Amino acid sequence: MSKTMTERIYLDWNATSPLRPEARAAMAAAMDCVGNPSSVHGEGRAARQIVERAREQVAALVGAEAKLVTFTSGGTEASNLALTPAIQTGDQKAPCDRLLVSVIEHPAVRAGGQFDASAVEEIPVTAAGVVDCSALTSRLAALTAQGERVLVSVMLVNNETGIVQPIREVARIAHEEGALLHVDAVQGVGKISIDINELEADLLAISAHKFGGPKGAGALVRRAETLHLPKPLIRGGGHERGLRGGTENVIGIAGLGAAAEAARRELQAETTRIAGLRERLEAELKAATPGAVIVGSGANRVPNTTLIAVPGLKADTAVIAFDLAGIALSAGAACSSGKIQGSQVLAAMGLPDDLARGGLRISLGWTTTEAEIDRFVAAWIKTTSALLKDTRGMAA
Amino acid sequence: MSKTMTERIYLDWNATSPLRPEARAAMAAAMDCVGNPSSVHGEGRAARQIVERAREQVAALVGAEAKLVTFTSGGTEASNLALTPAIQTGDQKAPCDRLLVSVIEHPAVRAGGQFDASAVEEIPVTAAGVVDCSALTSRLAALTAQGERVLVSVMLVNNETGIVQPIREVARIAHEEGALLHVDAVQGVGKISIDINELEADLLAISAHKFGGPKGAGALVRRAETLHLPKPLIRGGGHERGLRGGTENVIGIAGLGAAAEAARRELQAETTRIAGLRERLEAELKAATPGAVIVGSGANRVPNTTLIAVPGLKADTAVIAFDLAGIALSAGAACSSGKIQGSQVLAAMGLPDDLARGGLRISLGWTTTEAEIDRFVAAWIKTTSALLKDTRGMAA
Repeated sequence: MSKTMTERIYLDWNATSPLRPEARAAMAAAMDCVGNPSSVHGEGRAARQIVERAREQVAALVGAEAKLVTFTSGGTEASNLALTPAIQTGDQKAPCDRLLVSVIEHPAVRAGGQFDASAVEEIPVTAAGVVDCSALTSRLAALTAQGERVLVSVMLVNNETGIVQPIREVARIAHEEGALLHVDAVQGVGKISIDINELEADLLAISAHKFGGPKGAGALVRRAETLHLPKPLIRGGGHERGLRGGTENVIGIAGLGAAAEAARRELQAETTRIAGLRERLEAELKAATPGAVIVGSGANRVPNTTLIAVPGLKADTAVIAFDLAGIALSAGAACSSGKIQGSQVLAAMGLPDDLARGGLRISLGWTTTEAEIDRFVAAWIKTTSALLKDTRGMAA
Repeated sequence: MSKTMTERIYLDWNATSPLRPEARAAMAAAMDCVGNPSSVHGEGRAARQIVERAREQVAALVGAEAKLVTFTSGGTEASNLALTPAIQTGDQKAPCDRLLVSVIEHPAVRAGGQFDASAVEEIPVTAAGVVDCSALTSRLAALTAQGERVLVSVMLVNNETGIVQPIREVARIAHEEGALLHVDAVQGVGKISIDINELEADLLAISAHKFGGPKGAGALVRRAETLHLPKPLIRGGGHERGLRGGTENVIGIAGLGAAAEAARRELQAETTRIAGLRERLEAELKAATPGAVIVGSGANRVPNTTLIAVPGLKADTAVIAFDLAGIALSAGAACSSGKIQGSQVLAAMGLPDDLARGGLRISLGWTTTEAEIDRFVAAWIKTTSALLKDTRGMAA
């Protein structure tokens, strides 16, 4: 068997990306650094330097001040740190009464962080897969009229569909009612240009492993120093300016920083190339599978994600069939420990059950090649037609 | 200048240890693994395998069942996860009313985790530097008589003195009153043999970077499946059997697992050798500095730690002077972001202020050599006599 035949094709970049070479090199270098960043001696200061350099690199990626970047163990911890009734800003010191989240948020946000489940409310999305801004406006107005303090959390990019959410508008709506806005930007970083000030997000969560850094490193970024989190999630020795206890993950943070710098530098070239690959991919898939729906094909999407729903196809079975054919892709999100169920995002968008159960996510990245796309399309035709034949056979 | 003259001597192993070669190799290998451990395809399963292998390795190090090991971002997060009023065991489902901690706990525990500050109470230590078991017994009895449910948290080994705490006795006292026991074992792992069942600890927190793994990885280990933590600290996609949301730090966990295996294998040989080096060190320091006190020299200590208090010496100045002389050591704990203050542990043991302010921690590890000890002792004589001369000059 030739090499080309046996090489696997990784098309699950939204679940996690390979390490960028720059991240790997920075991590290898950090492995030689012995010190604890809190120690005052030379070894400690060397470790501190690695952490602070990465903080500058992450800040530059999202247009923030370095001192407003708090390192966490990932996007989930960053959102859990942000989502707290204790959040304060300027003169607003009273506890937050309510958390409004879009219904298509990642579980890291939908779980509500430090809010009681009873304080969390969901805002619907439109059939176009974007948060329903008029529903948000009226619900916020009603809550504010009742005297409630509200925190809003809307993701920058949906992890399943790749649809970019109207964050600037959401921020305007939230701020007009005196609410704060947290943005889970995990699926946006490295795929589109991000500036926390342009977005007017008060808080932004990012995760290294979605843009070429290691799993287990992320950050919560604040827009202004006036935003306080007086009750840190993880308490201890006052690390991260009192926002997050625990010795810093120096090696992981080095990888996060290097990935951030590389992602920023390569953004334009990578996204242009990847958008071209996806255009080719989607044209071929539509031609090959009449009746298939590319979700959000008319919407503003990040350039690497295709969510395709095929009537009659069972996504969970298809993922396994593609895996056997040497292709890694996914049925919706990866993050529920192997559980496979109908896409909650597609259901929220109002897709019929039959389609929502057949949603396959194909996500591309900077090592994806045209040859891989072509090989994938060939495998797609073979695999889906076999699966659909089985389904029809069983129905008969 | 010869190589020997310029090579630095690292004697701050209790702050953090160098990476073991085994950890480095495992992390380098994990860097090649692309998948998300939650993904069902081959790439995901490969990542899952790395995580589960490390879970077995960590479990073996502390005599636990692998399924009762929960990976965290380190010891601080592990203790924060454990210290919650929501902790349940068997038939005890009511919220915990009180957290009793020894006064010499690490800030990760003294901060109280998810308990309100008002629910946290400190138990004193004796002049010998061990938790006062009779004070614990009487306070526990009083609280239980009031109908309170109590969680006790006592460290296995104190980070500053190296004194081993009487955990089996503490466990017996706690359990007799129906209380649960959490043990911060961060400074014990890799230095003494640990078995969660022999200790009868209900929960055990460990941190990779104290025994040759990377910073940013640790674990909370439970003794029995009947112990529940129904409100995880970090909520999200149900990772770690629902105890800790967030994509696993695969590279860091690989390093943690490999370090655990190496630490277990090397424990006896390393500790025997290190104990010999410390014996030599302490004999020479006592001879060189009359009036110096080696804290806990008669107590049961881990073999790598010397806490020496010199009357008239200011520890913070001394740490800087030693750093300039090419030696990394510390004034008490490392973990309060560069802040240097009198040792709270020594004050709790009743040492006079003058001595408590002069406590220097010298901690050894598996790469420490006899030649380094000898060079350190020479530097000690030179540096401390210069510093003490300055002090006497200023007092005159």
